[in-house]
Amino acid sequence: NHPIRATLFPGDGIGPEIANSVKQVFNSAEVPIEWEEHYVGDKVDPRTESFLTWESLESVRRNGVGLKGPMATPIGKGHRSLNLTLRKELGLYANVRPCYSLEGYKTRYDDVNLVTIRENTEGEYSGLEHQVVRGVVESLKVITRQASLRVAEYAFYYAKAHGRERVSAIHKANIMRKTDGLFLKCCREVAEKYPEINYEEVIIDNCCMMLVKNPALFDVLVMPNLYGDIISDLCAGLVGGLGLTPSCNIGEGGIALAEAVHGSAPDIAGKNLANPTALLLSGVMMLRHLKLHDKADQIHNAIIKTIAEGRHRTADLGGSSSTSEFTKAICDHL
Amino acid sequence: NHPIRATLFPGDGIGPEIANSVKQVFNSAEVPIEWEEHYVGDKVDPRTESFLTWESLESVRRNGVGLKGPMATPIGKGHRSLNLTLRKELGLYANVRPCYSLEGYKTRYDDVNLVTIRENTEGEYSGLEHQVVRGVVESLKVITRQASLRVAEYAFYYAKAHGRERVSAIHKANIMRKTDGLFLKCCREVAEKYPEINYEEVIIDNCCMMLVKNPALFDVLVMPNLYGDIISDLCAGLVGGLGLTPSCNIGEGGIALAEAVHGSAPDIAGKNLANPTALLLSGVMMLRHLKLHDKADQIHNAIIKTIAEGRHRTADLGGSSSTSEFTKAICDHL
Ligand SMILES: CC(C)[C@H](C(=O)O)[C@@H](O)C(=O)O
Ligand SMILES: CC(C)[C@H](C(=O)O)[C@@H](O)C(=O)O
Repeated sequence: NHPIRATLFPGDGIGPEIANSVKQVFNSAEVPIEWEEHYVGDKVDPRTESFLTWESLESVRRNGVGLKGPMATPIGKGHRSLNLTLRKELGLYANVRPCYSLEGYKTRYDDVNLVTIRENTEGEYSGLEHQVVRGVVESLKVITRQASLRVAEYAFYYAKAHGRERVSAIHKANIMRKTDGLFLKCCREVAEKYPEINYEEVIIDNCCMMLVKNPALFDVLVMPNLYGDIISDLCAGLVGGLGLTPSCNIGEGGIALAEAVHGSAPDIAGKNLANPTALLLSGVMMLRHLKLHDKADQIHNAIIKTIAEGRHRTADLGGSSSTSEFTKAICDHL
Repeated sequence: NHPIRATLFPGDGIGPEIANSVKQVFNSAEVPIEWEEHYVGDKVDPRTESFLTWESLESVRRNGVGLKGPMATPIGKGHRSLNLTLRKELGLYANVRPCYSLEGYKTRYDDVNLVTIRENTEGEYSGLEHQVVRGVVESLKVITRQASLRVAEYAFYYAKAHGRERVSAIHKANIMRKTDGLFLKCCREVAEKYPEINYEEVIIDNCCMMLVKNPALFDVLVMPNLYGDIISDLCAGLVGGLGLTPSCNIGEGGIALAEAVHGSAPDIAGKNLANPTALLLSGVMMLRHLKLHDKADQIHNAIIKTIAEGRHRTADLGGSSSTSEFTKAICDHL
């Protein structure tokens, strides 16, 4: 039984500390994974036009799976955002973010259990902008049939594979009739192939109102890029924030790059204070992608138990434990 | 003392019923207003290219103030959306939506007290869209210095006039550097003229997360059109929904068109079941615009008291009162 090779981007700021936590927990659980670690480079790699090295991208392509911590894009000119480069270069077309109330961690909501699936490559993130005349600027939102079908296919596939009952397409097609209209058309086409899954369309403003009033109304949500950016953060907020919610990017050729989407928190970096939960739970998503469901369940339950007990919480959750104490408590539950 | 003339668009669906409620309450409070009622026409008026009559728009222009119920745009071709026509024709550049926890009406939040100010004429609502090739469509987001300055000026003016301490500009300028970048630049320019008001910039995804975690962090929020559409509905959801939240549009030449932004609810239309609160509170905003603060306070307090007592709530608030019973209860408190 050879170990599975997976790429690990610890990232910046608190990244290395929380990545360490993942390595320790995975070790304790005897997960058969061998990490290929890649750090963000200290100069622009001309082959990626960014601080990401070509080798690190090759590593993800070769392994097919990876885990990524937060990466702050260095300020300056002549290079691309790290996160956007990864999405583009690896064709990470779907960003999947499960969002559920954590047992024992109280927020105003206790009945959240939904998954946002965000188109991750186009839409409002086209990068196409220009000044028309002084004082008048335009941005282009680009929606393609190909990318819309692809993410819609993934959403329905995901819903079916995870025993979920409904897919809601989120849009503003009453205003953006052509772009969001095309997105909806693609969702409808895919929906026809999944008669067992309920399909509905919800306008984004109404969706946000319903989410804060009664998130239990939602199951799987699929949407264009910017709406996904907004709604996935909103949903994370319902259950405690980005420090507690995992994500996984699905890319061309079946690549899965799991990712903690919170920031790199430079103010607490290196102080053994960071909460590794989002990266740990993202690691669990990676394990499920690898069909290592037993390991995934064990680690997931150990994390939830540790948070629920409350004795070893990090400062962001109102506790006073260090990253390593919290990590050790999880390992002790394994 | 001549009465003040104001335009009233009862609108469709439940519109006429809730407009009646406003007329009754304003009568009981002896508000010195004479309504000029205008209904949506039954054919397209070529001068407005919509079902809105030219006369109704002239009425708002002449009076400078108006109150509007919900309007459903008739389906079909060759005419414009009623709401968008009003915004365009009357130059309604700022949509102001105060949003506060209602005493006695419990939601998951009890500490909301903020105001969203939405740019209402451009941005993602440009209507400019086209197909590039089969399967590839584009929408244009247009941001101008003029409209951005205008709404930013209004936001700071509003904050100062209402004794508020902070203005947050909501944006996604890390992605839409030029469009949202120009919007921010304009906000910064205006902020410099108001050193007594704190100014901050918040990225929209983070803003939504913070709003659901801790809405008390926010005071006045100003933003481009679509973000305003989304965030104002989210905020309404925090305190109970669009049936409880007022809005007022500020237009060229100082026009103020107050508006209930909920739908026309055709399913319950004509059944004496609708909740008139949003239109009533919008009427209160109109009174404040007219500097009729005493009347505004009286009516506002009577509405809040009626809801807080809980004996005469409409079905949407969990009660079993009719529109007229609820209205009578408010009048009894005057
Ligand atoms: C950092 C930023 C470019 C990014 C985005 O907007 O996609 C982030 O908000 C996210 O959701 O991953
Ligand atoms: C009905 C629709 C066009 C409108 C909008 O998107 O502006 C509505 O959502 C609003 O907020 O007034």
